[in-house]
Amino acid sequence: MELTSTQTHLLINTGMSFVGFLCLINIIPKFKDMFIAANLFGIDMSKPDRKKIPEAQGVVCGAVFLIIMFLFIPFPFYKHLAVNNKFPHHEYIEYIAALLSICCMIFLGFADDVLNLKWRHKLWLPTMASLPLLMVYFVNFDSTIIIVPLPLRPYLGHDFDLGVLYYVYMGMLAVFCTNAINILAGINGLECGQAVIIALSVLLYNVLEMSGIYHQAHVFSAYFIIPFLGVSLALLYHNWYPSQVFVGDTFCYFSGMTFAVVAILGHFSKTMLLFFIPQVINFVYSVPQLFRFIPCPRHRLPSYDAKTDKLKMSMTAIKMSKLNPLGRIIIWLMQTLRVLSVEEKGENLTCNNMTLINLVLKFMGPLHERSLCLILMAFQVLCSCVAFFIRYQLAKVFYGD
Amino acid sequence: MELTSTQTHLLINTGMSFVGFLCLINIIPKFKDMFIAANLFGIDMSKPDRKKIPEAQGVVCGAVFLIIMFLFIPFPFYKHLAVNNKFPHHEYIEYIAALLSICCMIFLGFADDVLNLKWRHKLWLPTMASLPLLMVYFVNFDSTIIIVPLPLRPYLGHDFDLGVLYYVYMGMLAVFCTNAINILAGINGLECGQAVIIALSVLLYNVLEMSGIYHQAHVFSAYFIIPFLGVSLALLYHNWYPSQVFVGDTFCYFSGMTFAVVAILGHFSKTMLLFFIPQVINFVYSVPQLFRFIPCPRHRLPSYDAKTDKLKMSMTAIKMSKLNPLGRIIIWLMQTLRVLSVEEKGENLTCNNMTLINLVLKFMGPLHERSLCLILMAFQVLCSCVAFFIRYQLAKVFYGD
Repeated sequence: MELTSTQTHLLINTGMSFVGFLCLINIIPKFKDMFIAANLFGIDMSKPDRKKIPEAQGVVCGAVFLIIMFLFIPFPFYKHLAVNNKFPHHEYIEYIAALLSICCMIFLGFADDVLNLKWRHKLWLPTMASLPLLMVYFVNFDSTIIIVPLPLRPYLGHDFDLGVLYYVYMGMLAVFCTNAINILAGINGLECGQAVIIALSVLLYNVLEMSGIYHQAHVFSAYFIIPFLGVSLALLYHNWYPSQVFVGDTFCYFSGMTFAVVAILGHFSKTMLLFFIPQVINFVYSVPQLFRFIPCPRHRLPSYDAKTDKLKMSMTAIKMSKLNPLGRIIIWLMQTLRVLSVEEKGENLTCNNMTLINLVLKFMGPLHERSLCLILMAFQVLCSCVAFFIRYQLAKVFYGD
Repeated sequence: MELTSTQTHLLINTGMSFVGFLCLINIIPKFKDMFIAANLFGIDMSKPDRKKIPEAQGVVCGAVFLIIMFLFIPFPFYKHLAVNNKFPHHEYIEYIAALLSICCMIFLGFADDVLNLKWRHKLWLPTMASLPLLMVYFVNFDSTIIIVPLPLRPYLGHDFDLGVLYYVYMGMLAVFCTNAINILAGINGLECGQAVIIALSVLLYNVLEMSGIYHQAHVFSAYFIIPFLGVSLALLYHNWYPSQVFVGDTFCYFSGMTFAVVAILGHFSKTMLLFFIPQVINFVYSVPQLFRFIPCPRHRLPSYDAKTDKLKMSMTAIKMSKLNPLGRIIIWLMQTLRVLSVEEKGENLTCNNMTLINLVLKFMGPLHERSLCLILMAFQVLCSCVAFFIRYQLAKVFYGD
């Protein structure tokens, strides 16, 4: 069987990603002391021994990812180089713009890890970083038309032009992806584990769609996702329980932007959002605390019980008198839906912090950190299955065949 | 008088750069505590009070530069956006690739400031970072032919194809520019001051050449150099004697890569090198110590005399018995040329450290830090004049009219 040129490039890409994986497995431990010396370390709160764990290792990942991509890019364009005036500039520019956005995000993430940036700084640069990407989208496609679901077609027609709102939507996608991973975090292996599962889901989707009409878009996505998987798996190896390194905001930003970039340029942003179901649940469940309808402590991590070596829900104490009516309604509603543990003691009310991690602990009882992470990852896999079902079965109901 | 579209864009670019300048002037002092809290600070060795000065402020500059460029880029391409299939992808890609290389370098510089990277790491990423740029050059121009100077034409012909060596040369240009600024450093305002003078020289050259046949290349260069000037001047304001902030490796890498990028894509790498004469002199003068023919101490900064508040040459003591013949020849030669202060005391030999800064102090005697910086900057200006003379007069002798 002869390989097509795309298959050859995918093989080369996979080979390079594997080399990157092996390098990172070796490199990460060597950088440990350098990070600790630079004050980039954290203390693992869920361990009996409180030793220094190097932080922000996503930066090493990101650098290796960039190197892989820089070395890989010439391959898909090699055959065009001989015929100079037929070079597909519009395709090449997608690669470069995507890398520019990702590089900006790695840079911002690292700056955040080092400097602990304020929220207003964090919102500026990612919005800026997506500008070149959006402009490439504008020039190459400028397709802002969405297909209207069947039930709404009598009112809106077959398709609907979102216009500039579509660009706002894409810009917000980048902000959502980066922050969604960043807030479902805090136990060993979780940030990296969920990113790996999302990346595997995206890759599977790309492979399934590669024979379809959007062939090129899905090949493009695969070229980015495979190296991302390579570097993330290496990081997961060291970040898995018990963590030898922490991934830092750098990794969350880096992975979020990579997902956003392939979704935007690959035209599958809705499907990408389906792979973020656990993150969406976590976000929605967190809303009452994130927007301060209910008091929010600085850390909402589960609390560690050294005797049993298990994690249990972390609780927040609230003075009833300080709770506004909206807060009371939210607590009553969540309690009724049995998604919140509440204890009342006279004037004080105690409830668990609103994160998906604590929710799992509410249902399952105290768990060992590794088991907790495995359960959350299993949930992520389950949600990806649901996502594929929605994409390939339910979508027919709403959009026809 | 009606403005051409290029003039309008240059005006917009200048306006945005000015806004960037004003923002930075205000922002830099606000970030001070954040940097000190993150352990990113240095002690000024040439001041009586040894207070903490925030380091690596080039990163703030770099971020503002990127934001200016991201916001500016749509302007020159705006008129093409309406006629979608005529969009000049090959031009747009130059902007994006240039920004990718610059962004990579800012990222690397900041990582270096934070982590104190080793040399082998420092050589990898910049080489990688210039790959997309070189590929854009390859695709858009692939002109590797150099015009042979008149005296050599009987042997080599009118022009000569350097082939792949030309790409090696361009890759090395980036490494040279970044490191050249980094080693002519160490007194208040010097790194930033020289970058500003080089940038002004480049801008003047661009303006002079803008009416010529390479119009587009020089406009491209100006679009990058004006915002660079904006952010550098703001940094210089705070970095000038007595420094409130230090620029860090980040700024040296950022400025070096910006110069390399405009020189490569603007096709004036030889002229750019002419603007680096003081850096070349400093490098050549430093070679005996950099390559360890003569022992090199960790710091070669001039030494501070608190009584007179002046800087004087820093000296290195060398055991004669440990000096190899090559080292002896070098010292004898430099002493004969009167460019080295040498004192012999029995077995020991003391000579000044080989940097341009110490050389100035050898000729002028002890100087106040500000005067020393001004003299070095005046020398940079003088060298730029020489560069223009060589470019516009001497070049005629070697290349004909």
